[in-house]
Amino acid sequence: MIRKIRIGNPIETYAVTEKAECRPAEEIPYFETSQQGKKLSLMLGQKDIVYGLGEQVRGINKRGWVYVSNNSDDPNHTEGKNSLYGAHNFLLIDGAHRFGIFLDTPGKVCFDIGYTEYDRMEITFEDADYDCYVIEADEGTAAERILTEIVHEFRHLIGRSYIPPKWAFGFGQSRWGYKTAADIREVVTGYRKNRIPLDSVYMDIDYMDHFKDFTLDKEAFPDFPEFVKEMKAQHIHLVPIIDAGVKIEKGYPVYEEGIANGYFCTDEDGKPFTAAVWPGKVHFPDVLNPEVRQWFGNWYRVLLNMGIEGFWNDMNEPAIFYSERHLKEVFEQLEDYKDKNLDIWSFFELKDLVGRLDNRPEDYASFYHNYEGKKIRHDKVHNLYGYNMTRAAGEAFERLEPDKRILMFSRSSYIGMHRYGGIWTGDNQSWWSHIALSMKQMPALNMCGFLYSGSDIGGFGSDCTPDLLMRWLEFGIFTPLMRNHSALGTRSQEAYRFDSRKMADIIGLRYMLLPYIYSEFMKAALSGDMYFRPLAFDYPQDDRARHTEDQLLVGESMMIAPVCEQNAIGRNVYLPERMKLYRFRSAADFDTEVLEAGDHFVPADLNEVLIFIRPGHIVPLAAPGAENTDEVSLSAVAAISAVSATQPLTLSFVETGTAEYRWYDDDGYTRNYEMQKHIRIIREDAAGTVTVENAKA
Amino acid sequence: MIRKIRIGNPIETYAVTEKAECRPAEEIPYFETSQQGKKLSLMLGQKDIVYGLGEQVRGINKRGWVYVSNNSDDPNHTEGKNSLYGAHNFLLIDGAHRFGIFLDTPGKVCFDIGYTEYDRMEITFEDADYDCYVIEADEGTAAERILTEIVHEFRHLIGRSYIPPKWAFGFGQSRWGYKTAADIREVVTGYRKNRIPLDSVYMDIDYMDHFKDFTLDKEAFPDFPEFVKEMKAQHIHLVPIIDAGVKIEKGYPVYEEGIANGYFCTDEDGKPFTAAVWPGKVHFPDVLNPEVRQWFGNWYRVLLNMGIEGFWNDMNEPAIFYSERHLKEVFEQLEDYKDKNLDIWSFFELKDLVGRLDNRPEDYASFYHNYEGKKIRHDKVHNLYGYNMTRAAGEAFERLEPDKRILMFSRSSYIGMHRYGGIWTGDNQSWWSHIALSMKQMPALNMCGFLYSGSDIGGFGSDCTPDLLMRWLEFGIFTPLMRNHSALGTRSQEAYRFDSRKMADIIGLRYMLLPYIYSEFMKAALSGDMYFRPLAFDYPQDDRARHTEDQLLVGESMMIAPVCEQNAIGRNVYLPERMKLYRFRSAADFDTEVLEAGDHFVPADLNEVLIFIRPGHIVPLAAPGAENTDEVSLSAVAAISAVSATQPLTLSFVETGTAEYRWYDDDGYTRNYEMQKHIRIIREDAAGTVTVENAKA
Repeated sequence: MIRKIRIGNPIETYAVTEKAECRPAEEIPYFETSQQGKKLSLMLGQKDIVYGLGEQVRGINKRGWVYVSNNSDDPNHTEGKNSLYGAHNFLLIDGAHRFGIFLDTPGKVCFDIGYTEYDRMEITFEDADYDCYVIEADEGTAAERILTEIVHEFRHLIGRSYIPPKWAFGFGQSRWGYKTAADIREVVTGYRKNRIPLDSVYMDIDYMDHFKDFTLDKEAFPDFPEFVKEMKAQHIHLVPIIDAGVKIEKGYPVYEEGIANGYFCTDEDGKPFTAAVWPGKVHFPDVLNPEVRQWFGNWYRVLLNMGIEGFWNDMNEPAIFYSERHLKEVFEQLEDYKDKNLDIWSFFELKDLVGRLDNRPEDYASFYHNYEGKKIRHDKVHNLYGYNMTRAAGEAFERLEPDKRILMFSRSSYIGMHRYGGIWTGDNQSWWSHIALSMKQMPALNMCGFLYSGSDIGGFGSDCTPDLLMRWLEFGIFTPLMRNHSALGTRSQEAYRFDSRKMADIIGLRYMLLPYIYSEFMKAALSGDMYFRPLAFDYPQDDRARHTEDQLLVGESMMIAPVCEQNAIGRNVYLPERMKLYRFRSAADFDTEVLEAGDHFVPADLNEVLIFIRPGHIVPLAAPGAENTDEVSLSAVAAISAVSATQPLTLSFVETGTAEYRWYDDDGYTRNYEMQKHIRIIREDAAGTVTVENAKA
Repeated sequence: MIRKIRIGNPIETYAVTEKAECRPAEEIPYFETSQQGKKLSLMLGQKDIVYGLGEQVRGINKRGWVYVSNNSDDPNHTEGKNSLYGAHNFLLIDGAHRFGIFLDTPGKVCFDIGYTEYDRMEITFEDADYDCYVIEADEGTAAERILTEIVHEFRHLIGRSYIPPKWAFGFGQSRWGYKTAADIREVVTGYRKNRIPLDSVYMDIDYMDHFKDFTLDKEAFPDFPEFVKEMKAQHIHLVPIIDAGVKIEKGYPVYEEGIANGYFCTDEDGKPFTAAVWPGKVHFPDVLNPEVRQWFGNWYRVLLNMGIEGFWNDMNEPAIFYSERHLKEVFEQLEDYKDKNLDIWSFFELKDLVGRLDNRPEDYASFYHNYEGKKIRHDKVHNLYGYNMTRAAGEAFERLEPDKRILMFSRSSYIGMHRYGGIWTGDNQSWWSHIALSMKQMPALNMCGFLYSGSDIGGFGSDCTPDLLMRWLEFGIFTPLMRNHSALGTRSQEAYRFDSRKMADIIGLRYMLLPYIYSEFMKAALSGDMYFRPLAFDYPQDDRARHTEDQLLVGESMMIAPVCEQNAIGRNVYLPERMKLYRFRSAADFDTEVLEAGDHFVPADLNEVLIFIRPGHIVPLAAPGAENTDEVSLSAVAAISAVSATQPLTLSFVETGTAEYRWYDDDGYTRNYEMQKHIRIIREDAAGTVTVENAKA
């Protein structure tokens, strides 16, 4: 049951696609409301858990910190931060009452979840203008279905999640610093030569002509369409980046068209607002305006026409390195410091003057959108920008490529954007703690509809080590977006730079698991379920499971327990029920063990992946050895109906009777999946006999 | 057995106090030497562990990163950093061969411990001038004694660790921002009123007159000696900070004397080198010169004479906010950027220009010491500065207060400084990961002789939460230096700001445990042992114990397993042998359980401390209820010989026979502990009968 309560006069976000009944006079249930709706307050019981907030710092259980929805370009994702790149105002309270709450407003929202007092949650809005949706499971819902059911209802409210092409479930390599076609060829050769599977290479800002969107550096890529073909012949998809800011440059058609049509955000005088990002000075397309979205989206066709089938949208908080106006002020102020005998406070002022040029609240409050016929100041709709840039692309793809799925994921986001693209978790670091962080973010993102997501494997900033990359891959093989990405100036971390045989073995597991990963992803997308779930969702009565933060359920059959500690020889695992452990070193080299419910220390060498299969469950596999997703599709059914002594056809845990798995598949690229979908029922009995049968329509 | 190998012509550091035989022609054992001794290389086996490096980032096992000995004022102790405040060039290799290695050189040393290749360690020196000590246990040493024995030999080589007064084992409260006597009174009242034990209040830079060392802000502290007395009457010791830089100010006697006598570090032209730190422009006393040490050390008497009995030395890497010369250059360069149309690279240059004013290698290479009759450039002896500032104080205290122990700890350090003071681990953050980091640093510091140490409880930077402070205290009650400290502008985190009853209960445990903590500290200091040990030291044959990074042995009787995860309801604990668990909520409220060797999930609510007692071991306790260390000393023996139904006299695990504990105590303030020491033998049998007897001399 969903109750919608409108407070004040909210700005439309289009997060919600289903109409919910709104009774204006109604109070927000459970919460105490004060300051005319600007503050909501809720007491928390000792063992209550608060889930949600999507892409944020800290735990699966969000208690004990203050989080602010304020999309921020901040590359230091430490525990002390309050905002990352996304605004995902959905919470799920698992206490005496179990309910979800979605606070639909594009402005800043502050969530004090047991920060000031451990037993109190306070939600504070900058403006008392928002829609509040309170979501509860229907009466009579079984306890172990309640959390899932609430998410299910919420997802129905906000519409179906974005579905990428199947090749986007392959492994991708990225780096800021692949400057030329030759650089990319070298990477592909590195993978292919070492027989490490690979499906895509990402092109960061280097490929553009002076960081101009929808252009190419002609020297670095003299015949780009031909290069795209060359890569495709090797089953490699190139995925270029698109930035939010449009370079100010006479004769650059995107700039000229934007100016001619008044498509850019303006300053208070109505002139295009000037900020600086990668290209130097830029204007921001006013993507909140549907006409601008259509125009900007159409520009993607430049690359689509060259054979490109996927993109990532970046810098779309939007990040601002400096604004033209403020930079001038700073240079004026610097004069004052010049001949001063700087005492320590004035010295820190000086440092801040230059150090805080970027992403200033004052700059965000100094430009305007033309939104639904009104001039609206950017900071009031800040959290919608990346969403609408990605929506521009998503809407364009539907027009330009009506039959084909196009890969799209974004850095900045708001709920609603999940219909147009996935996200990656931005500029993380080569830190062990960031494997754990990404694990904790995934289920929270799934709740809000962001199913196609993952973090930069190996870490973007800082220097990666061989063991860190290995352990990170061991988690990354389960994330729908599986991409190794790193920053200019950091240590090279392509898988072949290290022990390429062992890296190939681990990445190979992804391709072996692909039938299951794709099937579970699609089922979650189509039915509004979660691909990654905290243990609490399936074992809500088990207090240990409820407080487990370092294990996840992946789809219906599997629990994972990645090793996130450097130099560890294994890890503690809590089993809420009896499960079967598969310990994989490679697709062909593994051992199994049935473990009872309870605590176990499970050894896991650096090159070992732990997969736990739940009782009565099956995981369909592809034949090992695929080096790209094209090879997987052909092999999956064959593998399941074949017999092999050295490899499992399925992962399964069937002790009695017959287990059944509903295997979703489709051609992987048709946008109209309904036309192409193919459901097979896999059955396996205790003797290990596997049958595959097409499901009835 | 210690082998000393001299490479080149090393600069004397006085780290070593015992003469070791030096055979100049000898090669460094185990290592492959190249580049005329500038590079040492060692292959590591799959399961070899490398301990050591004192105050550094990452694990107890240092494998998988690159560490640089280069004392750095860097408040962001993330995994990606290579240097913190100390240079502790001692490693302990636990592999096919077990040995220690100490590389005695005051310059930069780079330790690549399985960073480039997981199986290789490489040590690289800037200059091939160093003394190398290779330390092995005597043949025939029992396996479980080898690591301890190597440390023991090393500690004998470098001399006895600093011993603070006993009151310094009480709990201390600190904050940058206690500006006046009234502020401090308010803090003390907050503690006393809430009956939370407290022994000291630290005075950060605020107390000085314009940040001038050995001065007082007269308005804030109109009668300081009287205030010191007032505090002492409440059993509170005030502990002021002393900074490295001396403010340049006509008439300020420290400055005037330093100038008159040529006591400051000079630039290349022989003029005093000017940097800026808190007071604005300063000169650095050339503490490498014994005459300067004597002069600077004597200045501490100003505060000693006012009744002060302890100090902390800060900013002594030395931190440099900017150098006069470079600031000028920057302002000149800023002119170039002024009218430029900043592209993105020039913009980042501009940001760096101002952002990297502090702690520049170029500044460290632009001033000089007068060391042993030679002019020596600072960067060649950089890592000795904080050490010698603290040595100045330590040497002065011996002269000025020959009978009394004075509390002293420092931020920057080098091995050798451990004889003159302890350290705290610098500007950490209110992050859960920093509880774990401090746990991992403690045993590594102990190896190098730094026994009196601890981290800022609750975290210095960032905002603390009630649960973080509680969990941090639960570890902090075991660190010899137990201090809550936080930065200006962060959330107030005095224990009474939160659930003061529960905070009092946890801090109360420290006072109950004090007889044991002090006894174990003193025994470790006097015999060159470790107070905190990784499990590997006592259970070297147990591979699980060897790879346990989140539990520590504390003294001879105890293992601890602090909870370092937010919202955790307990934690996994590995027991290398059968032990007795005490789960304390307060001194009077606890339960016990005997746990078998192996893995256990041990519940631990937010206000519960887990202490594991090893079989056949005893921990002597003080009677609960003490609110300062003065009260403890009187109560300890009484407690042990009393009987109580609700509280243990000892913590113990005696199943058969009689266990024995050698309890060290002394008056806690006499420098000549030999005169005052009092050893008692506590015996306890399986029936719980406790006897106490004075040991024979």
